[in-house]
Amino acid sequence: MTKKEFTIRSTSPTQFINIDRQVQQILNESGISDGICVVFVPHTTAAVTINENADPDVTHDIIDELNKVIPWADNYAHREGNSAAHIKASLVGASEVILVENGRLVLGTWQSIFFCEFDGPRTRHVYVKVQ
Amino acid sequence: MTKKEFTIRSTSPTQFINIDRQVQQILNESGISDGICVVFVPHTTAAVTINENADPDVTHDIIDELNKVIPWADNYAHREGNSAAHIKASLVGASEVILVENGRLVLGTWQSIFFCEFDGPRTRHVYVKVQ
Amino acid sequence: MTKKEFTIRSTSPTQFINIDRQVQQILNESGISDGICVVFVPHTTAAVTINENADPDVTHDIIDELNKVIPWADNYAHREGNSAAHIKASLVGASEVILVENGRLVLGTWQSIFFCEFDGPRTRHVYVKVQ
Repeated sequence: MTKKEFTIRSTSPTQFINIDRQVQQILNESGISDGICVVFVPHTTAAVTINENADPDVTHDIIDELNKVIPWADNYAHREGNSAAHIKASLVGASEVILVENGRLVLGTWQSIFFCEFDGPRTRHVYVKVQ
Repeated sequence: MTKKEFTIRSTSPTQFINIDRQVQQILNESGISDGICVVFVPHTTAAVTINENADPDVTHDIIDELNKVIPWADNYAHREGNSAAHIKASLVGASEVILVENGRLVLGTWQSIFFCEFDGPRTRHVYVKVQ
Repeated sequence: MTKKEFTIRSTSPTQFINIDRQVQQILNESGISDGICVVFVPHTTAAVTINENADPDVTHDIIDELNKVIPWADNYAHREGNSAAHIKASLVGASEVILVENGRLVLGTWQSIFFCEFDGPRTRHVYVKVQ
């Protein structure tokens, strides 16, 4: 299939947004029942990760700890002032690969896919391709 | 091929377990000689990475430094008490993609695939799919 | 296609090297117009990431902050003295998956692919496979 994309709107400087529904919908529309699904974030101050959705405290803790380890201000050279977001983007990563079986994303019981905003609020894009 | 899986049993809170043999065996059974192999961990307090196996001090140092950078206790909100494991899971990542040529995983001289336990000991699953 | 590879020479202990041109050239030679491209680094003290190329201060800041978070000397056990490089390799990761459409790598406006040297200077290899 050709890549599909969807748009999301973050509302905070740092925010994890569950995108399971949008990715599964694109998978449904592809008609592909077996393969792999690539989720790719075409931004350099955002990322994608898989983690727990059941308790929102988990993503809250991930966000807080990343902000502590990679402080927003730390004598960075980049004039735009968002170097911390670029660093977190490289640590978390621009893509995830998820297995597809019987037309479903194969995720563990507690796993959800999260778009990671590190320099919001912004309008963002997510690319999805199933092979 | 449909995904295959295997089970491993971690014995420590934080532990890296070499899974080269299990992944290569699934590749052998698939009969696929050329493509890519996706290794996916369906857990939110574990991950998969590729690093050096020759000297066990390397994974020992990775574990110790990750525990220093992301301390086990740091005023986390998540009541289950394993937020550090969730954070490390997102930093290291839930999947690895490895090239396959002539029926073999194409790894560098010093590379091995490690299951990363961050909240053990537990019984864990690893999914493998070759395309 | 079978995997292709190219060689690069790093000149500093820690260095990010833009490899967009080499990866796109291998994609061109493959003749594949639609699929996914896997970039894989067969080393345990190097990695690959996607980040901003427009302002070189961005990769400069990423390098400096990674060196601050994962110090080069921190009572590591590994005798070779490059444990920090191994740790950074696992955090940034050995592979990137990039979508391919119409014979082009689908990257965001500000995204470039960087080989990440964490224990240079060295001669290094990068594997590329398009499916």
